[in-house]
Amino acid sequence: MMMNHQLLIKTMLERAYKLFPKKEIFSRGLDRDMRYTYGDFYPRVCKLANVLQALDVKQGDKIGTFAWNNHRHLELYFAITCSGSVLHTLNLRLFPEHVIHVINHAEDKIIFVDEDLLPIVEKAAPQLTTVEKYVIMTDKDELPETSLSPVYHYEKLLAEAADTYDFPDLDENTPAAMCYTTATTGLPKGVTYTHRSIYLHSLAESLPDVLGLSERDAVLPVVPMFHVLAWGLPFSCTWMGSKLVLPGRVLTPEALCTLMEQEGVTMAAGVPTIWMGIYQHLDSGAKYDLSKLRYIVNGGSAVSKTQIAAFEKKFGLSILHAYGMTETSPVVLCSTMKSYMEDWDEEEQYAMRAKQGVLVPGLEMKIVNDEGEEVAWNGKEMGELCVRGPWITSEYYKEPERSAENIKDGWLYTNDIVTIDEEGFILIQDRAKDLIKSGGEWISSVDLENTIMAHPEVVEAAVIAVPDPKWQERPMACVVLKDGSNVTEQDILDFLKPKVARYWMPDKVQIIGEIPKTSVGKFNKKALRETYAK
Amino acid sequence: MMMNHQLLIKTMLERAYKLFPKKEIFSRGLDRDMRYTYGDFYPRVCKLANVLQALDVKQGDKIGTFAWNNHRHLELYFAITCSGSVLHTLNLRLFPEHVIHVINHAEDKIIFVDEDLLPIVEKAAPQLTTVEKYVIMTDKDELPETSLSPVYHYEKLLAEAADTYDFPDLDENTPAAMCYTTATTGLPKGVTYTHRSIYLHSLAESLPDVLGLSERDAVLPVVPMFHVLAWGLPFSCTWMGSKLVLPGRVLTPEALCTLMEQEGVTMAAGVPTIWMGIYQHLDSGAKYDLSKLRYIVNGGSAVSKTQIAAFEKKFGLSILHAYGMTETSPVVLCSTMKSYMEDWDEEEQYAMRAKQGVLVPGLEMKIVNDEGEEVAWNGKEMGELCVRGPWITSEYYKEPERSAENIKDGWLYTNDIVTIDEEGFILIQDRAKDLIKSGGEWISSVDLENTIMAHPEVVEAAVIAVPDPKWQERPMACVVLKDGSNVTEQDILDFLKPKVARYWMPDKVQIIGEIPKTSVGKFNKKALRETYAK
Repeated sequence: MMMNHQLLIKTMLERAYKLFPKKEIFSRGLDRDMRYTYGDFYPRVCKLANVLQALDVKQGDKIGTFAWNNHRHLELYFAITCSGSVLHTLNLRLFPEHVIHVINHAEDKIIFVDEDLLPIVEKAAPQLTTVEKYVIMTDKDELPETSLSPVYHYEKLLAEAADTYDFPDLDENTPAAMCYTTATTGLPKGVTYTHRSIYLHSLAESLPDVLGLSERDAVLPVVPMFHVLAWGLPFSCTWMGSKLVLPGRVLTPEALCTLMEQEGVTMAAGVPTIWMGIYQHLDSGAKYDLSKLRYIVNGGSAVSKTQIAAFEKKFGLSILHAYGMTETSPVVLCSTMKSYMEDWDEEEQYAMRAKQGVLVPGLEMKIVNDEGEEVAWNGKEMGELCVRGPWITSEYYKEPERSAENIKDGWLYTNDIVTIDEEGFILIQDRAKDLIKSGGEWISSVDLENTIMAHPEVVEAAVIAVPDPKWQERPMACVVLKDGSNVTEQDILDFLKPKVARYWMPDKVQIIGEIPKTSVGKFNKKALRETYAK
Repeated sequence: MMMNHQLLIKTMLERAYKLFPKKEIFSRGLDRDMRYTYGDFYPRVCKLANVLQALDVKQGDKIGTFAWNNHRHLELYFAITCSGSVLHTLNLRLFPEHVIHVINHAEDKIIFVDEDLLPIVEKAAPQLTTVEKYVIMTDKDELPETSLSPVYHYEKLLAEAADTYDFPDLDENTPAAMCYTTATTGLPKGVTYTHRSIYLHSLAESLPDVLGLSERDAVLPVVPMFHVLAWGLPFSCTWMGSKLVLPGRVLTPEALCTLMEQEGVTMAAGVPTIWMGIYQHLDSGAKYDLSKLRYIVNGGSAVSKTQIAAFEKKFGLSILHAYGMTETSPVVLCSTMKSYMEDWDEEEQYAMRAKQGVLVPGLEMKIVNDEGEEVAWNGKEMGELCVRGPWITSEYYKEPERSAENIKDGWLYTNDIVTIDEEGFILIQDRAKDLIKSGGEWISSVDLENTIMAHPEVVEAAVIAVPDPKWQERPMACVVLKDGSNVTEQDILDFLKPKVARYWMPDKVQIIGEIPKTSVGKFNKKALRETYAK
């Protein structure tokens, strides 16, 4: 038989330290940048683990972090998990009442906070019931003025701590990290990752046909470290010895392009808003050497076929789709092309690349219609994507009822309505709640949005369902135009007409100034429906 | 928390079937070749699982296979493991008494045998105590004459079986496969792999910085499927959707080169004897288009720096070292270069590539000297490599005493004496038993052999320890020259003199016609010592 060796995060940390001590971590700071190596990183993680112990942190305690993508946040990722406590990354874009809820619900014991995010924590602090201590992360020598108490200075704590630590041999099912996900209704729901799930997700994510992470890479996670652990990249990149490029607070197109050029970034990961901003920046004539960028990993929501083609043809930048959610660690699907697709027509290839892709190794899926039957792999029949596997959540933290709504018979129901084609490529058609059901037929709001967004004058489009006495629901399109555009609502309808089925044609097009977004940057259709669909 | 999803081999099989039904498996046959797809493969594996059930195989039963690298062997790999019984691959090069021992010791219930290997089984059969049935694999319609009984025809069994099978949800620690490894003394020792260990090994092996297996690959495992599961490639390639090219029985340089050209092989894996044969074949002027070959994976024993350089410079073929053993599933080390080594001198680069490489993700190691202390990472101090991890054996099957010799305090002692340099690259210096201890100093026989083999007229060299009254042991070199060479023993000594420390100089050089090999093709130093070191 084989050794009963537990799958733990500490193996990632120790490998980076021993095998890649020269490889760099670059972190963009508020006051000053930090450039150090995995060789320097490890003793600081050990110091931090000793600090946690000195602050009376026990195994299983939850530690909250309010921080940007920076080196101290990375140190917390490893020191907290490897010492046996639980990293709880806090989404700094949550509504204040949600911030208070998630900290109290998780029972965070200590909060680590970046200096410039202090106001969020100070505002919440009077209502926090479990937090005993605050640690402020700053490049300055002294703590800023703050109402928080007791409060500590991160660097001063580290300066006094020993730089070795004997990380414990935990059980692989020990909780390692938590993220809360915003829900359609009600308060955010918590997902707990284990050492085992993070270990397996990191391996799967690094495979050649997923993200293909190697020591040769310099990876820029633009996706926040408080958003599904930055898609697991801090763990997988450290394990594989990739250079990490942490962008800090400023995520403007200019700041990111400068960083990618300066640090020789080979892979960047984030949401479409980021890439659309960069596209416009480059399109306006800004010049950078981005020749080392193998590809841009896009998740959160889709980039359209037209946009993928434009990125590639105009700027030689390749976009790779990944799909997942907080409940799935997150990577579930990845749009890596199969070798024989290279012989396909260019149009067909772009159509595949605009899909969310195929199931990554290690997971299982089924796509079921309203009757619970699996749909055919024909790219047409729609069904809800259900997944299971070792990095899929089995519950929401301390929420048995809400867990039971989404996790049934060992499957996570994603609420995403998808089609799957003959090649196994999945295309998200809609969120279950956003799907438009008109006269018994399903209409995909996402598909309509992508079609509208192919119009050269359209910047963004969101399609929502409007109640209809005859058809139950009918689509309505909210469209944002380029500055100074003269396109009319009728122009949009004329543009759509030859492209979609007749019953898909929106009953109304409304030109608006901006589409409201959620705290994670997705279209806030709930808000749109409240305004337009009453 | 995360789902308690078990790590099982069936996920690999099902993924290949669902996502890569068009991808090919090519199998070179005795009578005829087989070319089919994972789409065709899956129903045959289901049929085979039904056949096993009909033959009264229960979960946990051991099933022996005597087969070349071919498609039926691949079907057995998956049908046996996924249905919950244990694949026991039998080394057809074992001595007859060892064949009998391993089958009886493992308690194999059924033996599957390739038609042309029947004589081995027929010879052993009278002494097999547990085998109840034999199944012959042949392309012919009827069974050959045989003394075996009861005996079945593989294809006829499959023809009558149903082509669907509901593979069970096993515990991930269920035994999946067994291999016996030849021991220095005594009978072969058995290692049992589990579903979990094969799953994790497959993921690690496929990583970009290990073998980098992807759907784009066409992989030729020259290493036998009865030798540490062909280094796990049948599992990892199926999982990743790589094309598999199975070479069958004929492994001549001409047959292999033809196959690589014909099937567009991107990666081939095997031992140095194979590659040296191919080198000589190409060097003699044979021409093939091997431009798709990303690299040759070499294991078993080392290829020298000179040979690596010659392969690359003369034929544009890149050699990648991998290191492992039956006890380690097998991959432990891999010589993938770090990105910054590209800036090094060519000589320094080749020196790194001639090493066995760095520890793969997921394992832990220590290198200890005679006092049990860890050696410095300076490329000089020698120590024994010890490893632990989820794909390292915790015991030899039903051999508690021999297990205790090699597995101590949770570590596998590999018996390999190595150095490790500042970059974490490990170089095997010797097998512990082959190491020469002269006047209190260690002399690496492997290092001496490589130095001698750099002589243009030398084909092979084996260095052994000869007892010495003053120095305890002294090195002696047995050297095989190219046909017709006039090189003398003194010439070899003169060649060595400027290259090695004085006390490393062999006391004697003996020119011989051939170096005896073990059943797995390694130098049989035991035989040499018996002849020359008395």
